[in-house]
Amino acid sequence: VSGKRPALSGEDRLIARLFKPLAKHPGALALEDDAAFFSPPPGQDLVLTKDAVVAGIHFFAADPADAIARKALRVNLSDLAAKGADPAGFLLALALPSGVDDTWLDEFARGLGDDADTYRCPLLGGDTVSTHGPLTVSITALGTVPAGKMVHRAGARPGDRIFVSGTIGDAALGLKLRESVAAKQFAKLSEKARSHLEQRYLYPQPRNALASAVCDHASAAMDVSDGLVGDLAKLCRVSGVTATLQIADVPLSEAAASAINLEPSLLQTALTGGDDYEILCCVPQSAVPRWLDSAKASGVPVTQIGMIESGQDAPSWIGASGQAVGFGAGSFSHF
Amino acid sequence: VSGKRPALSGEDRLIARLFKPLAKHPGALALEDDAAFFSPPPGQDLVLTKDAVVAGIHFFAADPADAIARKALRVNLSDLAAKGADPAGFLLALALPSGVDDTWLDEFARGLGDDADTYRCPLLGGDTVSTHGPLTVSITALGTVPAGKMVHRAGARPGDRIFVSGTIGDAALGLKLRESVAAKQFAKLSEKARSHLEQRYLYPQPRNALASAVCDHASAAMDVSDGLVGDLAKLCRVSGVTATLQIADVPLSEAAASAINLEPSLLQTALTGGDDYEILCCVPQSAVPRWLDSAKASGVPVTQIGMIESGQDAPSWIGASGQAVGFGAGSFSHF
Repeated sequence: VSGKRPALSGEDRLIARLFKPLAKHPGALALEDDAAFFSPPPGQDLVLTKDAVVAGIHFFAADPADAIARKALRVNLSDLAAKGADPAGFLLALALPSGVDDTWLDEFARGLGDDADTYRCPLLGGDTVSTHGPLTVSITALGTVPAGKMVHRAGARPGDRIFVSGTIGDAALGLKLRESVAAKQFAKLSEKARSHLEQRYLYPQPRNALASAVCDHASAAMDVSDGLVGDLAKLCRVSGVTATLQIADVPLSEAAASAINLEPSLLQTALTGGDDYEILCCVPQSAVPRWLDSAKASGVPVTQIGMIESGQDAPSWIGASGQAVGFGAGSFSHF
Repeated sequence: VSGKRPALSGEDRLIARLFKPLAKHPGALALEDDAAFFSPPPGQDLVLTKDAVVAGIHFFAADPADAIARKALRVNLSDLAAKGADPAGFLLALALPSGVDDTWLDEFARGLGDDADTYRCPLLGGDTVSTHGPLTVSITALGTVPAGKMVHRAGARPGDRIFVSGTIGDAALGLKLRESVAAKQFAKLSEKARSHLEQRYLYPQPRNALASAVCDHASAAMDVSDGLVGDLAKLCRVSGVTATLQIADVPLSEAAASAINLEPSLLQTALTGGDDYEILCCVPQSAVPRWLDSAKASGVPVTQIGMIESGQDAPSWIGASGQAVGFGAGSFSHF
């Protein structure tokens, strides 16, 4: 019996070195407790979301460590934004394979901490475990909205205008580019366009700046994570409505437009591929001018792509010459 | 273009079939939204905890599916109990390998739903993803305590009496039994004792019934998950104190006592092995009578095992003949 203070375990040292600096909320108790405490300010509801990302499924194991951390947090921040909520904090469960070294962990924590600061979303707690399988990052994010004001998926009503933020399809094309670098579809694409699409896959840009405009004006909203076509169908299904969309109105980046111009079949990839992390929302006609003003003030571009209609059918996507276009399943599903 | 309502994806069907019945809280929005909403009742703080379990690390992949689900939830419920908090709900991230079939999933959901009812902890939301690796279950549990009353690890003061709930070491011995069925250490153990130890490993019994007694009377508390010796050292470290413990006072089940009687080296396993999910707490001397009354009313047995003292040294464990006993690292660590 030495009688000396025992050394911290490897796990405790790892948490203290990497993650304690991110635990800036007093309720995190410097990550030295079993649990965190948190209470939304009076008059605010708590909004909770939980998305997990797995190496080989949601990202490539060889992606930069900071990009993996940022994506794991940002896919959750995107859900909060779509609900009209402001980020309040997050909990992290990290399952680490044995090959991960200190340099990788430092970069992971740096990316995570940088985003936690940028999005004002401090680390509240979590768990670090080992795994014999791929790196897995499970984050639970907390946000706040004025009581009763969370924007649901199910609120769309006939006549509402349908908007999306930013541009659609970049990340899905970026993923396709990485999976088939030699494919002739991308052979003529400029280096700049390739880089744009790849970066959009690696680094989603959650639209938290748009959250208060969504909260104030949207009747229904969700983030586009599994493909615009499929996600819109989900929103319509839970709202008990249908919709008509103009494909030509869907906002595309210059890079995505170039790729689709070179290979028209990539339009389907763009509209159904997923990983956009843009906001899809419905706005009553009377609120559209104020919505557009608020969106403009937020600095996030938004584009009207169609209208909600009465009915139970699948949404109709209308092509440039007025014909209906089909997209099959239209959505990414794990199973 | 069929014009018909599109079928749900496999992922959506799986969630609707298995998990929607567990989403009894209105804030879960029947799992048909990106996020859940929840607010603690006025005058209550929210307590948040997140523990992940991985096949091959925290449980055996061949364990019963319901046991895996229950353990994943109960390790989190145990954290809430140790903080004096009542369960309020949970979020689930489930990473499923491809070999998992419907029968397994049904049993998993049945165990999870059964526990959600028993512990009044409804499913609020989550994420179901595929993985090329082992089954991984990451749960974030929410609890509530009267505002400002969460019991911290760091509150132990010299003179406080140290208590543990239930019995210590059963799960660690149960694990050892499974890992070395043929070992001579266990050869003479009765079938009943073997079964008791194995069940305690498979099905932790979180002490949520003791939460209000802990909240009302404990100065510091944590749950025993990484081994009593190591966890007590952590509690002392963050509280800035030390402690003296009587090994003979540590409560053992009949089965654990039999095993240790047959093979005295198993005492170390019992005291350092982990997976107990009992509550370790400190109670000021003046509060001990009321604490014991409250604990008795809860139906959870508690046992005094030592006392907090001034100092920075590692806690002292005293053997039957008054000698100090050392335990090495004393705690499970993933790294």
